[in-house]
Amino acid sequence: MELTVYLAGQIHDNWRDEIEQKAKEKNLPLKFVAPQTNHDRSDDIGEAILGEQPGKLYRDHAASDINNLRTQVLMQKSDIVIALFGDKYRQWNTAMDASAAITMNKPLIIIRPEALIHPLKELSNKANVTVETVDQAIAAIAYIFE
Amino acid sequence: MELTVYLAGQIHDNWRDEIEQKAKEKNLPLKFVAPQTNHDRSDDIGEAILGEQPGKLYRDHAASDINNLRTQVLMQKSDIVIALFGDKYRQWNTAMDASAAITMNKPLIIIRPEALIHPLKELSNKANVTVETVDQAIAAIAYIFE
Amino acid sequence: MELTVYLAGQIHDNWRDEIEQKAKEKNLPLKFVAPQTNHDRSDDIGEAILGEQPGKLYRDHAASDINNLRTQVLMQKSDIVIALFGDKYRQWNTAMDASAAITMNKPLIIIRPEALIHPLKELSNKANVTVETVDQAIAAIAYIFE
Amino acid sequence: MELTVYLAGQIHDNWRDEIEQKAKEKNLPLKFVAPQTNHDRSDDIGEAILGEQPGKLYRDHAASDINNLRTQVLMQKSDIVIALFGDKYRQWNTAMDASAAITMNKPLIIIRPEALIHPLKELSNKANVTVETVDQAIAAIAYIFE
Amino acid sequence: MELTVYLAGQIHDNWRDEIEQKAKEKNLPLKFVAPQTNHDRSDDIGEAILGEQPGKLYRDHAASDINNLRTQVLMQKSDIVIALFGDKYRQWNTAMDASAAITMNKPLIIIRPEALIHPLKELSNKANVTVETVDQAIAAIAYIFE
Amino acid sequence: MELTVYLAGQIHDNWRDEIEQKAKEKNLPLKFVAPQTNHDRSDDIGEAILGEQPGKLYRDHAASDINNLRTQVLMQKSDIVIALFGDKYRQWNTAMDASAAITMNKPLIIIRPEALIHPLKELSNKANVTVETVDQAIAAIAYIFE
Amino acid sequence: MELTVYLAGQIHDNWRDEIEQKAKEKNLPLKFVAPQTNHDRSDDIGEAILGEQPGKLYRDHAASDINNLRTQVLMQKSDIVIALFGDKYRQWNTAMDASAAITMNKPLIIIRPEALIHPLKELSNKANVTVETVDQAIAAIAYIFE
Amino acid sequence: MELTVYLAGQIHDNWRDEIEQKAKEKNLPLKFVAPQTNHDRSDDIGEAILGEQPGKLYRDHAASDINNLRTQVLMQKSDIVIALFGDKYRQWNTAMDASAAITMNKPLIIIRPEALIHPLKELSNKANVTVETVDQAIAAIAYIFE
Repeated sequence: MELTVYLAGQIHDNWRDEIEQKAKEKNLPLKFVAPQTNHDRSDDIGEAILGEQPGKLYRDHAASDINNLRTQVLMQKSDIVIALFGDKYRQWNTAMDASAAITMNKPLIIIRPEALIHPLKELSNKANVTVETVDQAIAAIAYIFE
Repeated sequence: MELTVYLAGQIHDNWRDEIEQKAKEKNLPLKFVAPQTNHDRSDDIGEAILGEQPGKLYRDHAASDINNLRTQVLMQKSDIVIALFGDKYRQWNTAMDASAAITMNKPLIIIRPEALIHPLKELSNKANVTVETVDQAIAAIAYIFE
Repeated sequence: MELTVYLAGQIHDNWRDEIEQKAKEKNLPLKFVAPQTNHDRSDDIGEAILGEQPGKLYRDHAASDINNLRTQVLMQKSDIVIALFGDKYRQWNTAMDASAAITMNKPLIIIRPEALIHPLKELSNKANVTVETVDQAIAAIAYIFE
Repeated sequence: MELTVYLAGQIHDNWRDEIEQKAKEKNLPLKFVAPQTNHDRSDDIGEAILGEQPGKLYRDHAASDINNLRTQVLMQKSDIVIALFGDKYRQWNTAMDASAAITMNKPLIIIRPEALIHPLKELSNKANVTVETVDQAIAAIAYIFE
Repeated sequence: MELTVYLAGQIHDNWRDEIEQKAKEKNLPLKFVAPQTNHDRSDDIGEAILGEQPGKLYRDHAASDINNLRTQVLMQKSDIVIALFGDKYRQWNTAMDASAAITMNKPLIIIRPEALIHPLKELSNKANVTVETVDQAIAAIAYIFE
Repeated sequence: MELTVYLAGQIHDNWRDEIEQKAKEKNLPLKFVAPQTNHDRSDDIGEAILGEQPGKLYRDHAASDINNLRTQVLMQKSDIVIALFGDKYRQWNTAMDASAAITMNKPLIIIRPEALIHPLKELSNKANVTVETVDQAIAAIAYIFE
Repeated sequence: MELTVYLAGQIHDNWRDEIEQKAKEKNLPLKFVAPQTNHDRSDDIGEAILGEQPGKLYRDHAASDINNLRTQVLMQKSDIVIALFGDKYRQWNTAMDASAAITMNKPLIIIRPEALIHPLKELSNKANVTVETVDQAIAAIAYIFE
Repeated sequence: MELTVYLAGQIHDNWRDEIEQKAKEKNLPLKFVAPQTNHDRSDDIGEAILGEQPGKLYRDHAASDINNLRTQVLMQKSDIVIALFGDKYRQWNTAMDASAAITMNKPLIIIRPEALIHPLKELSNKANVTVETVDQAIAAIAYIFE
């Protein structure tokens, strides 16, 4: 039984590589999908496909058309969602993906530092599991295969 | 036809009163519901009902149990959700409620200042309408009754 | 038992008034809702609420934000959808509303002239009933109350 | 991860071949399905299977029985729907398929010429992405695999 | 709490009047809805609304358009479905309505004579309750209000 | 693309073999599943597994437990349902399966002789296609692969 | 806004009266529904309606037909479910109702004594809130109306 | 056609091995998944992943986070659920899983000793089949492949 895991969340460090690496080390039968992690590419994709837009609002709207298409396709193909919140940035996309996962009955693991306990409390409360490290998230998924 | 509107979002100014007041002035047949807007009450409610908890994590978890119960009941009773994002705080609850509304096919209006165009672009893209002021949100709802 | 009927379709003649009038004559316990039937208002509503847009594409996009909000709210409140196609205009909104009604399991009556039998055949085939006149649509609904 | 793409829309030029060709050139792992693109076959299929019908209305109804069966089976198997509108014909089937896709939460890309911006504005507004060329649609899907 | 009960089933005796009468005697807060019980009216309704049809197949198809519209509207409004099978006729409509009720999670009571135990065994098995008399069905519903 | 077809309906002749044979001749990528077609086995299965029952009602109830388990598993795995009605027997199981398929949005083909047009009119009206022969049903499915 | 609350759980003391009394004292706009709380009536109801059964298994099966009909109707009408577990009896009905509520997205409050923390841990974990007393459950609901 | 079977229920004897062994002997194409059957591991898993907790309530809550994640993933992957109740322990997890399966339309087989007929009567009544032995459960599934 292979499971597909959607890795929602910040794109400012290499936590996705770390998860994939650790899953490989444990021989877990997991396939990972994710949003576009190249930040510039993600911001530019709207104009790259739809052409130049008349201002920042429209440029952002065009980019999110394409980014949301990607997320919807990949999340519908996934069995588990992991959402990682870092201590910088607002990361409303991450909260959006996490909440969508819950409402679609996709099992959800949240990773967040201790400092974010309070602002994330309601979302954490709805997730299946909330942890602080990538290792803990992998351990929770590994447990499914025991 | 009376509609129930859930007012998700920040609790640090009186925007909900303003919306209710303006709806009344326009004689719109709307009933408003909302999360607990007394911040201290919202943070304390877990321990108030469930008793003292062993630390901040557990205190927050207890509070969110009760807050999420409230939100789930009231959002299921609503016909429209308005989510307001201000320029302070992380407001992940607001993003969570907005995304849940979309996934449940509840029509959604986002109110956010111009400064938040970029970080909210994917969520905005999924909403029915994104505006900058309470007056615009009320105008969009008033249009339903024209 | 009062039923709410959504009147999708062209806004270029007074067929909605005719239906409401005939329902009243037959004392049918029906409440009618509909898209914005003032064409200019419908096209202008985006800029009226969201401000001037940078070109026609964006002006249309803004208008449809508000028009789709209206339709989603009202169609979710309805028990039956009537979709009328006239022989002018492309009326893709009407087809969109009719198809959404079918997919949401809302009972659907299509009214279309004989000349449109061929281009509407697949949509007609999915509707509960397809008729040619407003009187026939009203007769079909009246039958529910016999 | 292979994705299945349903190609809704006009059958009067070879745009589907073009899409399939371009997907192949980019080595995208896509499988394409579509409505019957032989127009005569599509119109005749009802009588071909169900026998001669008493007039055009019934002939069309019989054809749409079979065409709708085909569409329902194939669309339920698909992960993405592309709907192309050309500047001729009414193409209500295309609007019907596009709207059904949205209501079923199938990600939707609309391709339409600039001339159709206005009549398609509400449908476009509900799609994930609206573009003007086949290349843009392929680019949007290619982005999912980046 | 008032409940709406859809009375599916044969239209060849007055069992619906009997149920309504007995519910009234027991002061049960029930509202009853049903298919058209005038058999001729039910068979004629297609041509009455849609005009003369080219043969019996088409006449029946037209009638069922209107009858199914009625059933869909009324069953969606109901809280409980009672389906009565008599020992004459094939009553596939009744089986259709009963099975639709089960699949829609509408609570279902079947009334059938002892002679029909065997042919109805799979459908009975899926119903909430299967009884032999109208009095038993009313007793089962009365129990909800105890 | 392989499709799974559930063959609901009477078990008194070899129509299922005929369909499978003809699908093979046409090289259609179909897999067929069906209810238990050995009538005695189907009637005995309850007591065979659950032990002797205290009378015919209970014996039938036990058999339908097992038969309904089988049908639910197999129908959920299917992409298309074919329901064949013969001119003997009441075949309420067939009507039950056909109606369940419709309500679950499984595409449905009904096969029935001309003599059954009238009693099956409402169910036929809800099916995607109604035909008179096995060949026609196979032709309709073959069309999906054209 | 009046809410309907289903009171699942043990029927061996008067906790339902206590809840209703306390809700009244607080002027909460709540309507309460519940399973049959007369234990003998609940066990006898099958034979009372369906006649004498051939043994205890069948007697119990008949009773549960009627009890499950009641529960299904009332739970579908409810906005919130409270499930109380006492320290005697197995109360699998209570667990069944609580789990059904969760799966149907009905907000759920569990009341259980401290002694049951361990055996109820997975179910508690899925509930919105778990408390130890009737007063706490009422306090949680009262908070919705603040 | 391979089916995946979730084996809910007590973890105090080797009934799962027995089922897997018997399925193998009969060459049934079944894949089995299950909750964690090592009782200590199941109780410890929360602290093993999330760290030491401040007391038994929190320790149990942490464990159930991980156990419920596992169950949700595996049950969503399953085609059939078997739930076994033994005569010891309260086994509310088993009742929770069984009820969730029913509400999600997963076919359900209950295995329980004669002594549990009465306390399990409502849950049994909702299951597809209730049997007393592992052999009977396997026989019911084997029948699907006949």
